Amino acid sequence: MNKKVVYMDYAATTYTKPEVLEEMIPYFNQYFGNPSSIYSISRETKKAIDIARDRVAKALNADRSEIYFTGGGSEADNWALKGIAFAHKEKGNHIITTKIEHHAILHTCEYLEKYHGFEITYLDVNEEGIISLEDLKNAITDKTILVSIMFGNNEIGAIQPIKEIGAICKEKKVFFHTDAVQAVGNVAIDVKDMNIDMLSLAGHKIYGPKGVGALYIKKGIKIHNLVHGGGQEKARRAGTENVAGIVGLGKAIELASDNLDTHNRRLVELRDKLINGLLEIPYTKLNGPTGEKRLPGNVNVCFKFIEGESILLMLDAMGICASSGSACTSGSLDPSHVLLAIGLPHEIAHGSLRLSIGDGTTEEDVVYVLEKVPAIVQRLRDMSPLYDEFVKGDEK
Amino acid sequence: MNKKVVYMDYAATTYTKPEVLEEMIPYFNQYFGNPSSIYSISRETKKAIDIARDRVAKALNADRSEIYFTGGGSEADNWALKGIAFAHKEKGNHIITTKIEHHAILHTCEYLEKYHGFEITYLDVNEEGIISLEDLKNAITDKTILVSIMFGNNEIGAIQPIKEIGAICKEKKVFFHTDAVQAVGNVAIDVKDMNIDMLSLAGHKIYGPKGVGALYIKKGIKIHNLVHGGGQEKARRAGTENVAGIVGLGKAIELASDNLDTHNRRLVELRDKLINGLLEIPYTKLNGPTGEKRLPGNVNVCFKFIEGESILLMLDAMGICASSGSACTSGSLDPSHVLLAIGLPHEIAHGSLRLSIGDGTTEEDVVYVLEKVPAIVQRLRDMSPLYDEFVKGDEK
Repeated sequence: MNKKVVYMDYAATTYTKPEVLEEMIPYFNQYFGNPSSIYSISRETKKAIDIARDRVAKALNADRSEIYFTGGGSEADNWALKGIAFAHKEKGNHIITTKIEHHAILHTCEYLEKYHGFEITYLDVNEEGIISLEDLKNAITDKTILVSIMFGNNEIGAIQPIKEIGAICKEKKVFFHTDAVQAVGNVAIDVKDMNIDMLSLAGHKIYGPKGVGALYIKKGIKIHNLVHGGGQEKARRAGTENVAGIVGLGKAIELASDNLDTHNRRLVELRDKLINGLLEIPYTKLNGPTGEKRLPGNVNVCFKFIEGESILLMLDAMGICASSGSACTSGSLDPSHVLLAIGLPHEIAHGSLRLSIGDGTTEEDVVYVLEKVPAIVQRLRDMSPLYDEFVKGDEK
Repeated sequence: MNKKVVYMDYAATTYTKPEVLEEMIPYFNQYFGNPSSIYSISRETKKAIDIARDRVAKALNADRSEIYFTGGGSEADNWALKGIAFAHKEKGNHIITTKIEHHAILHTCEYLEKYHGFEITYLDVNEEGIISLEDLKNAITDKTILVSIMFGNNEIGAIQPIKEIGAICKEKKVFFHTDAVQAVGNVAIDVKDMNIDMLSLAGHKIYGPKGVGALYIKKGIKIHNLVHGGGQEKARRAGTENVAGIVGLGKAIELASDNLDTHNRRLVELRDKLINGLLEIPYTKLNGPTGEKRLPGNVNVCFKFIEGESILLMLDAMGICASSGSACTSGSLDPSHVLLAIGLPHEIAHGSLRLSIGDGTTEEDVVYVLEKVPAIVQRLRDMSPLYDEFVKGDEK
């Protein structure tokens, strides 16, 4: 018996698209030469990397020379932060970020704070998860060297006013990095127009393979390496290139860019149908913004009186793959730092459910989920002492 | 017309073996779940990573909990050095390494020296490329926190007395890291018996994929992260796991371990045939040690009076893929730091040729190379003013 599976965790990872995998395969054992070697069979791998670099550059409106491949989004984030921090510590030791960043940013900031003498300002966000531009302006001092603010949030889908942030950073002459791991392939990005100095992205969020990402670094920026060694990536990121992975990332980002508008329109429609359906369940709250301020594939709701973990287990039993927060912190019993930052109390933050949709999601999937979730929520509430108390209170 | 290709650059990279690729494929789009998620389809990926971790651990005689996957050998090297340096700088700021390390070690050391207040001792090697244990003992001070000495050299194949080095470090209570990227799969390694505290390895040198590696870290060692973020790899190396890559590395290392003896015996025989044949060319010198002190797949010779780069181009025209040093520094006009360290003068170091053989190398390949190289060397010498002078001098 083949169990029905409805995958709604695209924000955790996508599958690799068949046409992406197909382009990758020859680079495992046919064109396998080390791109740094000088004989003919290596020229193929070198060329393939150039093509991938062009594709990534085009998707961001960057120059080919500004794209550096990494082992993933977290490496790119770590590189941007530590690389700028260590290279500019003579100028200042202050970094600004937000309370709702991915842990690849937050934990790196905490590390720089704890062990390397940096000071970090964590900007608040409003109830939609958006920062205040005034707060940002006020936070910048003459010690500030870097602002790192994510493009679109992985948990609640909030899209920051990136262009306005870029303009402020440009005016104040501080570097601006954005973690765009969730945004790339889902939102139009133009690093020039938006004044972005550095941008992180990852292959496995855009139907490419896991274990490959990229950091865009604007021409002329001084940054220390995170990985020192051989002369790869213009001597800025050492290590034999993950050729197949890079080819896959290049193909994936090209596909994503080519189909951006259709993809977005389709996802926004499915997303809003899902949101509206879930909000019909009593005592349910949408987390994060609506409309264009929200990533097209992101749904995040809180069901009062119940635990997110229990919902996930029951959804899994029905073949629905979802998440209670970011995949990277599952196993942790702490409520999401993002939900706390938008002002949710602990007990409600615990009852959150993230459904993230993507290219494989169908209308039928949405209908199936909307059919199953209300009954699950009701069953869990029936077992919940909190709900019991609440209902009794209500009846009084 | 299909040109004959004889690949003799296995030390730069291997192809991915078909049986390795076959195990990887399902993890791109069938079992694609994020291993950190809690639903059923992610359990498959989590399990696959566990199996791979077991395989790597077994190959090194380590415990599963001591293996951490990385984006490659260079990342593993950077992590070991920077992670120990930053975590133990209160204890001391002195690191010992050798003059013949891979650039992933050397450039990281230079970085720590230049920007983070560390002091590095670069041990000399003898004409075979082997360090002196006395030198090592004498170099250790009460400020020394780490010794990093490579297992087998990528250019001249010299294998260091790792067990003896481990014993010294244990006695002196300093951490011992070894870059075993070239040794794994070619030499028997036992981290317990050899007192190795940390060991780096890479997938693409052992018929696995590029872009994946591992760092063995002995239980209980305090080390800072290189990549901070999510809780992956027991919160020591953040970033969504490169599942397919990790599966490939696991399979590759298992195959390598299972066939270690046969593989070695076969390669040593081919290697020595190649070495002996090349040494019949006049004014030719073997670089590096012989017998068991040399990596089984490594051949490195210098032809007096000619340039390595010119030999490579002519070999390429005959379908022979080789290298003049390490792949990571090709494009550089500097002579190899390894050849200079074993005492070769600049002009001779320039005329070196590395032929590295592997599982795909046949007796026929060796015969073909031995047939072609003498004529190439002669042609290049005929054009060489240095040789011309030398011959005239000889005739006098």
